[in-house]
Amino acid sequence: MKLMRIGAPGSEKPAALVADGTYVDLSDVVDDFDEAFFGGGAIERVRDTVASRAAAGHVIELGDQRVGAPFARPHQILCIGLNYSDHAAETGQAVPDEPILFTKSPNTLIGPYDDVLIPRGATKPDWEVELGIVIGRRTSYLDSVDDARDAIAGYCVVNDVSERAFQMERGGQWSKGKSCETFNPAGPWLVTPDEIDDVLALDMWLDVSGVRRQTGTTATMIFDPYFLVHYLSQFLVLEPGDLINTGTPPGVGLGFKPPVWLQPGDVMELGITGLGTQRQSVLAPR
Amino acid sequence: MKLMRIGAPGSEKPAALVADGTYVDLSDVVDDFDEAFFGGGAIERVRDTVASRAAAGHVIELGDQRVGAPFARPHQILCIGLNYSDHAAETGQAVPDEPILFTKSPNTLIGPYDDVLIPRGATKPDWEVELGIVIGRRTSYLDSVDDARDAIAGYCVVNDVSERAFQMERGGQWSKGKSCETFNPAGPWLVTPDEIDDVLALDMWLDVSGVRRQTGTTATMIFDPYFLVHYLSQFLVLEPGDLINTGTPPGVGLGFKPPVWLQPGDVMELGITGLGTQRQSVLAPR
Repeated sequence: MKLMRIGAPGSEKPAALVADGTYVDLSDVVDDFDEAFFGGGAIERVRDTVASRAAAGHVIELGDQRVGAPFARPHQILCIGLNYSDHAAETGQAVPDEPILFTKSPNTLIGPYDDVLIPRGATKPDWEVELGIVIGRRTSYLDSVDDARDAIAGYCVVNDVSERAFQMERGGQWSKGKSCETFNPAGPWLVTPDEIDDVLALDMWLDVSGVRRQTGTTATMIFDPYFLVHYLSQFLVLEPGDLINTGTPPGVGLGFKPPVWLQPGDVMELGITGLGTQRQSVLAPR
Repeated sequence: MKLMRIGAPGSEKPAALVADGTYVDLSDVVDDFDEAFFGGGAIERVRDTVASRAAAGHVIELGDQRVGAPFARPHQILCIGLNYSDHAAETGQAVPDEPILFTKSPNTLIGPYDDVLIPRGATKPDWEVELGIVIGRRTSYLDSVDDARDAIAGYCVVNDVSERAFQMERGGQWSKGKSCETFNPAGPWLVTPDEIDDVLALDMWLDVSGVRRQTGTTATMIFDPYFLVHYLSQFLVLEPGDLINTGTPPGVGLGFKPPVWLQPGDVMELGITGLGTQRQSVLAPR
């Protein structure tokens, strides 16, 4: 399934994509794709609803309706730093021995085509195409890496937008440059694992105003999604609907010599094989 | 007002303390002390309810009922590092030029008398008595430090429990050693600002198994609560009900020579003038 949320910010309705440009509405059977939905195992129950409605032709044209993030604001957004060896190299940092964890404020979540705001005082806004993992059940102290497969509800494209000066020049920790308003576009879809042949063989790309900046593949991740979920579950409790941003491949603005930063008027376009594409306009500080 | 939540974990009912050992039930007028409550301005509306019920003698004995955290799981828990100059010195780190921000998983929140679990694999579990700030409205880009006063719903005692090896020896960022299950006892009360004469003159203390370990005062904070709320609002959007842990005074386990770590069977007792006291038993990993 490809789960979506359609409608104005704050009043998105749950749906499932059934073919390019058409969807099945699920708002009469599901409140939202949120912690209760994922934790209650409802993802398997809506599968039959989607199939039967699609078979009966009860589909709706997407048209120009807004697409929101494909899940509700999560309990937490966890992020993995330097998880592609070639990206670590471009930023001049060593490949980590174990995953680097940082966080973003959950209210950074926006839809895949929403505007991204440059924060006031920003000097180094940057982009990061990433594979997002959405957690499917309450998860703590997994016994094995293989057990992590059952804890994953699905995957999505995320743009881990970053302000490098806030992140690295304003004291100690990274969250300050990761949590600005609009800094986590996600979607358009939450794709269930059964629709993905090999999550470790997905191409990733990101263009800024028509110039290809990032080209990568999940094949070069240092710590794969199953390892990450198992690893994180040893330190904290993952809740259903939690989002994990798994790190970015080479080509971020910080890695160019000289660096390249986002400017008002720029357009970011990004995507991952099978998970859809995003497009955000970059706006000056409000 | 001193807001409380009373009842079993996950089904606490909102209430207000009216005298030692007695409270007014508010569960018929308020769903919970959560984002909707704080954001909707309901904190001022319940003030009259509390006063009239107390005057009419509609009070209940607390007895041995469980006391939960005095507010629901927040959207985010933000923490300030090294915010007391003498604590920075004891950990061997420089006084920061501007606030150091890190985060805890929101599901670390527990009641003030609940058990604290040592995580599996922990070697350096530690304590931190702190002044907690709860945000009263959606807050972004405050114009002045003084504007922060209107953004604060109240204050509480928190214990920012930490695992120093996870925090500082397991890769890059601090969150890994701050987000373990049960690591954020809060309460017993959320005290509204009108009940506090001077938030910058509150004594703080923490004992471990009867030995006084932390003695401090909010008078020695480097960045005060109003500065912190204004500062954070320049980087991210604070939501109603968000918790800010404002840093700890001297006397954490890490600061002793040799260091002193929490052991199974230890009891932590801590408090802040006017904000109440906490008591947690420390349990071995589950």
